[in-house]
Amino acid sequence: MSEALAGQAAALDAADELAACRALFALDDDVVYLDGNSLGALPRHVPARMQDVIAREWGQLRIRSWEESGWWTAPERIGDRIAPLVGADRGTVVVGDSTSVNVFKALVGAVRLAGDDRDEILVDASTFPTDGYVAESAARMTGRRIRALAPQEIVGALGPRTAAVLVNHVDYRSGRLNDLPAMTAAIHAAGALAVWDLCHSAGALPVGVGAHGVDFAVGCTYKYLNGGPGSPAYLYVRGDHQARFDTPLPGWNSHEDPFGMRSAYAPGDGAVRGRVGTPDILSMLALESALDVWDGVSIDAVRAKSLALTDFFLECVEAYVPAGRVSSVTPAAHAERGSQVSLSCEKAGEVMRALIERGVVGDYRRPDVLRFGFTPLYVGFADAERAAGELAALLD
Amino acid sequence: MSEALAGQAAALDAADELAACRALFALDDDVVYLDGNSLGALPRHVPARMQDVIAREWGQLRIRSWEESGWWTAPERIGDRIAPLVGADRGTVVVGDSTSVNVFKALVGAVRLAGDDRDEILVDASTFPTDGYVAESAARMTGRRIRALAPQEIVGALGPRTAAVLVNHVDYRSGRLNDLPAMTAAIHAAGALAVWDLCHSAGALPVGVGAHGVDFAVGCTYKYLNGGPGSPAYLYVRGDHQARFDTPLPGWNSHEDPFGMRSAYAPGDGAVRGRVGTPDILSMLALESALDVWDGVSIDAVRAKSLALTDFFLECVEAYVPAGRVSSVTPAAHAERGSQVSLSCEKAGEVMRALIERGVVGDYRRPDVLRFGFTPLYVGFADAERAAGELAALLD
Repeated sequence: MSEALAGQAAALDAADELAACRALFALDDDVVYLDGNSLGALPRHVPARMQDVIAREWGQLRIRSWEESGWWTAPERIGDRIAPLVGADRGTVVVGDSTSVNVFKALVGAVRLAGDDRDEILVDASTFPTDGYVAESAARMTGRRIRALAPQEIVGALGPRTAAVLVNHVDYRSGRLNDLPAMTAAIHAAGALAVWDLCHSAGALPVGVGAHGVDFAVGCTYKYLNGGPGSPAYLYVRGDHQARFDTPLPGWNSHEDPFGMRSAYAPGDGAVRGRVGTPDILSMLALESALDVWDGVSIDAVRAKSLALTDFFLECVEAYVPAGRVSSVTPAAHAERGSQVSLSCEKAGEVMRALIERGVVGDYRRPDVLRFGFTPLYVGFADAERAAGELAALLD
Repeated sequence: MSEALAGQAAALDAADELAACRALFALDDDVVYLDGNSLGALPRHVPARMQDVIAREWGQLRIRSWEESGWWTAPERIGDRIAPLVGADRGTVVVGDSTSVNVFKALVGAVRLAGDDRDEILVDASTFPTDGYVAESAARMTGRRIRALAPQEIVGALGPRTAAVLVNHVDYRSGRLNDLPAMTAAIHAAGALAVWDLCHSAGALPVGVGAHGVDFAVGCTYKYLNGGPGSPAYLYVRGDHQARFDTPLPGWNSHEDPFGMRSAYAPGDGAVRGRVGTPDILSMLALESALDVWDGVSIDAVRAKSLALTDFFLECVEAYVPAGRVSSVTPAAHAERGSQVSLSCEKAGEVMRALIERGVVGDYRRPDVLRFGFTPLYVGFADAERAAGELAALLD
């Protein structure tokens, strides 16, 4: 479309310190994959590892693998692999269940820690819906009420009645990045607890749950962490809350002595308290294997590339797409931007279908949003330029 | 040990209509695997299917697989594969989450259907512990109280305060089969709802949840259903309860229009209402593939072989093991026996370790129980005879 921008893309790709990571992924087709914010691409080494898990660990060792292959301790072990990616201490993250189920654990846990005199849960009104639905249930089952507010209204609404606040770090639809440090500090100043949903930020930018004193956090692992379809989610409970974390789902895996088969519940210490039932080992070990791509990768480098990619994509869209056909829903300010660009567009559903046919895979969110996710480990600047070019060609 | 019993085993194996099923499993070592009641053996065709799921569906189709590979509808589709194995109607079983999480959904759902004037939940005191722990939480969060009773005391304890009853169909420790038809009828006569845990019965004997009017049921899929380590559990909600099933975990997957991304929750119709978050696709599709071994298998034939196997094992134990060294904890009456034999034995932990070294794999449950699970699809009568012989040799 423009030799200048194509040349700029080539130069940026040549200078990209993360460029070599792309070879770690099965991306051999001629597709520009900008949907890693929905389902991360397959790391190339995962199929061989899973063949070993299935054929040898399950098929040959069978029951012995719970101990000999480390299945039993996988939820904490993999939690410790995720911990540095979100700035958490060792022993504070556990993997298992879905994000929705973890939102329930975290929010009920937070409300119980906040005490009975605090009866309000504030939730981000633009949240990914499941968080809102589950928060309603958590409120109903703990005798609290929900107030849904725009993220920018939350700080002003905090008060002595606030028990807990549930916010998305990055909004799934707009790609807006909420100010986790400032909001967490304000929530604490009001005496409440902060529960962050990291689904759209973990693996794309530094989170710093530890540094900012986040109380609870949850996130999925199948987006920027590339764990595979529906791979298990994780729960972070701040170290000094662990001993008082009173889970609403006290399954036997969280017991202090699970094989004691005791009829009275006594919670285990540490991250294990966030476990519930028997973990989905196949999905969990695919995730563990997938996390190998992070070896030696700096999350600050990921963030720098993510911002450069989304900046460059917006620049190409501005240059290529006829004026007035799309407008960015994603904040221009770096401090307010995650790792995706959302463009509002007429007939967005049809446009995305046509774009996918042209080999540019993003997704569509009703009613009018085209989402393009930029996964710094495998998306390059030439990809961004081509995506903008194909979009322009379609809309021209 | 005894030529007569060895000969009898050979004759029974020769006449076994399910004998050919064993070849469907990866059981090529010289091990007698009697722990399929904990982790079912690997069906031989599963690794190739999973390679396709991982390398092609995830690796190549990526996000398109949610639709094109049928990932999105897997929980209901696989539910419909399990339904006939437990005697449920199509559209009443959904797969996902762990058994513990499903106990929570089922018990809270049952209590809410029972109404506010019924404030007691009765639970089987010898239950697998997680059911009891989760029931305590369900009671606490719905303002009910728990009464834990021996299964045989439950019918006598039913009354106008009983909201719901949670019982294990087969006791994990003793292998006792509870009388599902009679107990369910008594629970209904008292105006309460019956929630059955089928972990140790589904795939080993006919359950008949539909025929007996069971209200809710849950079960795991990694024991007699061979779905793989930690494969997702299932939830059964009786058809005429579905429209009023008020789940405590209303995740976005259970919404009537999940991709509408609506901020207000509106539950979908049918089995889908039991879903929560994004399903663990790898574990789920391994389960789906594993269920192929049931094609053409009659669950009545499975039950007949199961009883013959456990009878024969008990006969061999009686014949081989020195008197007084073990005693059966499992009821002798067929109507009260699941598909395992539990033997109480001194130093049971050490004995089981030694038995495993001799190639007979069962498991140990504190304080004194040796468990031997008989999976009719792949365990034969010669296996039972050999297991008893090795046990006798050890204890001699």
